[in-house]
Amino acid sequence: MHNEFSRVGLVGQWQRQASSHVPIQSPASRIPDDIRCARDYEIAAQRFMAESVYAYIHGGSALDQTSTANPRAFGRWTVCPRLLGDIRQSDTRVQLPGAMLDHPVLLAPVAYQNLAHPEGEIAVARAAAATGSAQILSTLSSFSLEDVAQSAPARRWFQLYLQPDRSASLDLIRRAETAGYKAIMLTLDATLQIPSARAQATGFTLPAACVAANLQQYGRPDAVAGGTALRRDVIGGLLRHVPCWSDLDAVLAHTQLPVWVKGVMHPDDARALQGRGVAGVVVSNHGGRALDGAPAALQMLPLIRSAVGAQYPILFDSGIRSGTDVFKAIALGADAVMIGRAQMYALSVAGALGVAHLLTLLREELAVCMAHAGCRSLADLRSATLIRNGASEVRDECASC
Amino acid sequence: MHNEFSRVGLVGQWQRQASSHVPIQSPASRIPDDIRCARDYEIAAQRFMAESVYAYIHGGSALDQTSTANPRAFGRWTVCPRLLGDIRQSDTRVQLPGAMLDHPVLLAPVAYQNLAHPEGEIAVARAAAATGSAQILSTLSSFSLEDVAQSAPARRWFQLYLQPDRSASLDLIRRAETAGYKAIMLTLDATLQIPSARAQATGFTLPAACVAANLQQYGRPDAVAGGTALRRDVIGGLLRHVPCWSDLDAVLAHTQLPVWVKGVMHPDDARALQGRGVAGVVVSNHGGRALDGAPAALQMLPLIRSAVGAQYPILFDSGIRSGTDVFKAIALGADAVMIGRAQMYALSVAGALGVAHLLTLLREELAVCMAHAGCRSLADLRSATLIRNGASEVRDECASC
Amino acid sequence: MHNEFSRVGLVGQWQRQASSHVPIQSPASRIPDDIRCARDYEIAAQRFMAESVYAYIHGGSALDQTSTANPRAFGRWTVCPRLLGDIRQSDTRVQLPGAMLDHPVLLAPVAYQNLAHPEGEIAVARAAAATGSAQILSTLSSFSLEDVAQSAPARRWFQLYLQPDRSASLDLIRRAETAGYKAIMLTLDATLQIPSARAQATGFTLPAACVAANLQQYGRPDAVAGGTALRRDVIGGLLRHVPCWSDLDAVLAHTQLPVWVKGVMHPDDARALQGRGVAGVVVSNHGGRALDGAPAALQMLPLIRSAVGAQYPILFDSGIRSGTDVFKAIALGADAVMIGRAQMYALSVAGALGVAHLLTLLREELAVCMAHAGCRSLADLRSATLIRNGASEVRDECASC
Amino acid sequence: MHNEFSRVGLVGQWQRQASSHVPIQSPASRIPDDIRCARDYEIAAQRFMAESVYAYIHGGSALDQTSTANPRAFGRWTVCPRLLGDIRQSDTRVQLPGAMLDHPVLLAPVAYQNLAHPEGEIAVARAAAATGSAQILSTLSSFSLEDVAQSAPARRWFQLYLQPDRSASLDLIRRAETAGYKAIMLTLDATLQIPSARAQATGFTLPAACVAANLQQYGRPDAVAGGTALRRDVIGGLLRHVPCWSDLDAVLAHTQLPVWVKGVMHPDDARALQGRGVAGVVVSNHGGRALDGAPAALQMLPLIRSAVGAQYPILFDSGIRSGTDVFKAIALGADAVMIGRAQMYALSVAGALGVAHLLTLLREELAVCMAHAGCRSLADLRSATLIRNGASEVRDECASC
Repeated sequence: MHNEFSRVGLVGQWQRQASSHVPIQSPASRIPDDIRCARDYEIAAQRFMAESVYAYIHGGSALDQTSTANPRAFGRWTVCPRLLGDIRQSDTRVQLPGAMLDHPVLLAPVAYQNLAHPEGEIAVARAAAATGSAQILSTLSSFSLEDVAQSAPARRWFQLYLQPDRSASLDLIRRAETAGYKAIMLTLDATLQIPSARAQATGFTLPAACVAANLQQYGRPDAVAGGTALRRDVIGGLLRHVPCWSDLDAVLAHTQLPVWVKGVMHPDDARALQGRGVAGVVVSNHGGRALDGAPAALQMLPLIRSAVGAQYPILFDSGIRSGTDVFKAIALGADAVMIGRAQMYALSVAGALGVAHLLTLLREELAVCMAHAGCRSLADLRSATLIRNGASEVRDECASC
Repeated sequence: MHNEFSRVGLVGQWQRQASSHVPIQSPASRIPDDIRCARDYEIAAQRFMAESVYAYIHGGSALDQTSTANPRAFGRWTVCPRLLGDIRQSDTRVQLPGAMLDHPVLLAPVAYQNLAHPEGEIAVARAAAATGSAQILSTLSSFSLEDVAQSAPARRWFQLYLQPDRSASLDLIRRAETAGYKAIMLTLDATLQIPSARAQATGFTLPAACVAANLQQYGRPDAVAGGTALRRDVIGGLLRHVPCWSDLDAVLAHTQLPVWVKGVMHPDDARALQGRGVAGVVVSNHGGRALDGAPAALQMLPLIRSAVGAQYPILFDSGIRSGTDVFKAIALGADAVMIGRAQMYALSVAGALGVAHLLTLLREELAVCMAHAGCRSLADLRSATLIRNGASEVRDECASC
Repeated sequence: MHNEFSRVGLVGQWQRQASSHVPIQSPASRIPDDIRCARDYEIAAQRFMAESVYAYIHGGSALDQTSTANPRAFGRWTVCPRLLGDIRQSDTRVQLPGAMLDHPVLLAPVAYQNLAHPEGEIAVARAAAATGSAQILSTLSSFSLEDVAQSAPARRWFQLYLQPDRSASLDLIRRAETAGYKAIMLTLDATLQIPSARAQATGFTLPAACVAANLQQYGRPDAVAGGTALRRDVIGGLLRHVPCWSDLDAVLAHTQLPVWVKGVMHPDDARALQGRGVAGVVVSNHGGRALDGAPAALQMLPLIRSAVGAQYPILFDSGIRSGTDVFKAIALGADAVMIGRAQMYALSVAGALGVAHLLTLLREELAVCMAHAGCRSLADLRSATLIRNGASEVRDECASC
Repeated sequence: MHNEFSRVGLVGQWQRQASSHVPIQSPASRIPDDIRCARDYEIAAQRFMAESVYAYIHGGSALDQTSTANPRAFGRWTVCPRLLGDIRQSDTRVQLPGAMLDHPVLLAPVAYQNLAHPEGEIAVARAAAATGSAQILSTLSSFSLEDVAQSAPARRWFQLYLQPDRSASLDLIRRAETAGYKAIMLTLDATLQIPSARAQATGFTLPAACVAANLQQYGRPDAVAGGTALRRDVIGGLLRHVPCWSDLDAVLAHTQLPVWVKGVMHPDDARALQGRGVAGVVVSNHGGRALDGAPAALQMLPLIRSAVGAQYPILFDSGIRSGTDVFKAIALGADAVMIGRAQMYALSVAGALGVAHLLTLLREELAVCMAHAGCRSLADLRSATLIRNGASEVRDECASC
């Protein structure tokens, strides 16, 4: 805590302590019988994580308003079935800057994945390799980016939090390039975080084993967590590290890799980033972990697609819980999606096997939804008919871009 | 299960096993005292079915979002009463391709009705005969279409699932014609189904006694359930059997009977089927058992009526729970409706007597609603005033076509 | 029951039996301490009525959808406060055809008021006299219209259900005129009723003491309850007694008293009745006891006011629970309102004293609301600013006529 | 009670009695561990207040409809995050008639603050001084305005209830001027109050220790509570004291201090007050303690800002529970806000320390929200993008003035 009263922190600000959070049950070596759909992992994970860890992962920020709103926003749309289309030759391929993928579900960057499973990001890498998925490794990974890269031949990108020492940021990019990461995803939305009140109430603290392996060499491990509290300005001290346009320019100038920006919620910001040379944007409110009180990410997605035009690459996260949700996000403007919490739940339940199974379930649910909607490719989803749930007017409210 | 992980199946895909599901209570020989309206059968059936069977029938697909949305959609409309109309000579007759009926409540095709009562479809046939109702027999009936036809002199149609061996499909049609079925109802929407998670959680499996009597002679009993899983394409193997336009044309060319298509949700599909020579469409999302995430069927009904014009025959199912619901569906564009789950509940409670009673209650509720709305015939319902429940603007939102 | 299955009845159709329903607690001789607002009588009455009687009075029809929707509709409107208006000289007077009243809360006709209190309609008459209120006596009163007229010097009108023997109807009017009733309120909406399923579940039957005193002399006590069931037509037999325009004309030709019509929900009906010479209409869905599935009466009120013009007399019932509700109904188009259920609750709690107290509370709540809204007279309410609760657009949605 | 039945009172009308309400727990000398955000004080206060006192403070009027609607109205708006804005030099200063403040959270006038803590308004004054906040002292304070003024060097204004003896009102203003209060806030909306039914049910009465210290010298302590009941006019007697335009003119003529008017809900009233020379308006429904059934204050705020133009000073209270709520109110048109109930909760938990902590939390939450929304000053909030929560149309519903 940076002053007597404050709970605001920079990313990774949770107090660290020695006591480990013992999981209730060891990860399973096979898929439990009660996992029947992707969402079941959310339930099952409660058996495999200590209560406080589950609360930390499940929670968002402050009163969890936005983290709750994210999945609910999907319930406002329904998918209209179609009949008799020829869907016998269908696929779910997608070409993105930085990867050509068989399916549009990417593994979002998540900090300290050894919270969920001892093998953490390495287990995720194996699942990604087994299922042809892309892994985006967090700056705050519990294994170093080099170790993860050597563990399995997955498609992978590197997620970057700008470091207070900006040269460390550039060095991280260089290391990622060297290790074979194919894109940089720069996260810009989570500079200040108020932890979830519910997670705080469980007494969650970051176990001692959770360290940011990538940052050890820069002298101040977990340096992003710093900042001296200035009582008078409340959070003034923290704002010194807030990224600005010149930071973005420095990243863009420093690498030939495609640079995604994550955390975009306003159409004007999306357009500005597009103009600046960013390869694509990730529409996301950080799963509700950044500003509690932000709109559901899905609500902003069609506006952002409309702002940047039909061709500009858009990824989406924040609220995906099923393959039908993947369908809806793509129909509303995304090219592909990322999953964060679900990944952690599956990881806690059955490690690499769980994550691979989760991805299989999501692909299967997506494929069933595509079949019912008469879509043969992801491109078809843009012209699928989405209908507002219980719209007060009875008319076709098609959401195509 | 067709691959290690998948839960997706073709119709009737539930694993079969020897252990029977014992009903809690034998069917009653009289109507229980607590049945006071059509919906009461839904409650009472819980005493007459094993929990897992009830969960299977009550459930929809996956997370049951659409099966829940279907009945709720009726609550969004209210019926405005009228005064002093001369309704002393009123009736509920309706002329459909394939039947002239005294009332507009048809018995929907339901698979394996011996799940609910040992006499299954034969008990339903008796109830249909006793109440002047039409029965639509499922391809997956537990008694053969010939046996059902001989059991009672009801009006009846035959529901067709296209078989992987298309010649079996045509043979089924020929047999139905021979046995006196007056129309074919081709179901096109349920090719792929993800079972209800809630039903799966109860451990439901199809009892050994549930076999598709009509399909025994085609070498592969329940052949629709086949399909070799292709791990790489996830559900690719199943998609080989998805019906396409040429399948429909083959059916139309093969029979002189009127052919209805069931499972229509999109106005463009309705118009295309109308142009192809289909006798009428059944607006339905399979009671929420096909695509979980589809809109409530009632939400699409006025759009489809508007697309096909005032004269084209439309049936409706998915969500009817009362005679007032029948009124609303007809007022919003249907010519008549079908009941599926309610039929199974009443069947489990009191066999043929239960189904006959249910139909009587629904007719009575419909007649009371017509009297209050000042309607003398079903044709009058199209100009009845329906009002959106709690519409945010205070104005007459009449839904007539 | 008029056929083996049917539950539909004409008014007052409940099976009669000898066993009386014993109230849990005798009526109080003073106001209980827990009565702090008008709505508290609804709670307290549960101590003073047998469960089945309470369920019968509280219930509506069938699934109670409309009886539930009625009070909720008031929650959709809020009253915008005003400042500094000169309200020191204010009153709540209203001139209606048949009565000049100090306040706009009338006592609705309710059948068999001795269900709630042994003194029934006579206690109500005393409360009306004590508070300057008007009582509308039901055709189905438990005391004769002559006995009620002699019991207390209240303003009173007579409510008429048309009798199967139409000459009895005209005789009832003549008797009401002779006994000093100043208007006739002809109820047209409750010809057919399906009882509340919840009330039926409690086993409610009409106690033997509940007889229609006014109808004893016409040979067939409670003759309105007759009708031979015709199984084939379901409710065909009952429809023989449904009132039509000629019945209304006969009533209008038979009396010089102002004739109100109760049960009006459609603007076109209101306009037709206005043209026919009816003195005023009562916008009402019979408290949800007629057609379950009808819109909330309040939802139709502004449309009906708009249809008949600013001057035509309109009464409102169905959902009034507080003085603020009285304010809203008048602001949305009514000249005055009637209370039914609340009257029965207060009657059961403390007889005449309870009803008088209830009226005082409602007047007080109305006066407080008027003061906050800056209204000096009921006429001012029409230009008061009502705002839709949580309207999705932030703009002044004023509901004035 | 001013007549046999009535519950209506003027301000402060609660029956007074000797028995004190013993708090469950003495105020804490440090901040309890379970206070993690401003709203947590609402929960914690239940340990520090007697149940009936908590019910009185938490409750609104009558059925608490408006007090419940107030905070809910904030949930209808979300704040759209922005990226990369330069917010390193940001502040929350605001200039109001009567105060230049470091932050926009003022301490609302609350009657009898010794209900929450023995040091009452003096503890609040110390918290205000420590945090650079403004205190608005109630006419009905439990310490005299002179004693409060001497206790701590805070910015302070005086809230005025017009007294039945109008010369007492003017004398109060003179005393406030002499004691260094910098503005007068004239409350006009709470002349008549129906207490919260829930608070009444707990048996709440004002403890004997709660006396209006400022009014002792005017002969009739708590004289505002007077009024002789006139049974015939119900609340006629109370209306004699309702303020009118000449009362306002008298106040304006009597003082050179800026005069705010509190309780404004209608845009026309705001405009009229602006024209009369009032320094600013407080948009407020008295936290739902005045008219139960009034709209949420936040719903009216944008309409009022639109009516008075961008420059006219507006304060807001009624429903603020977090710093994000502060952000939303300012974005929707307010210059600053006041907190009432939250102040009392924090006061009960930890006295001056609690109130200071509460203000710090609110400032911090506001600052975090500003950072995420890319705002450097309160002026920037007016052009921030607020989005309707789950708006049925997917488009940018920006609420700027």
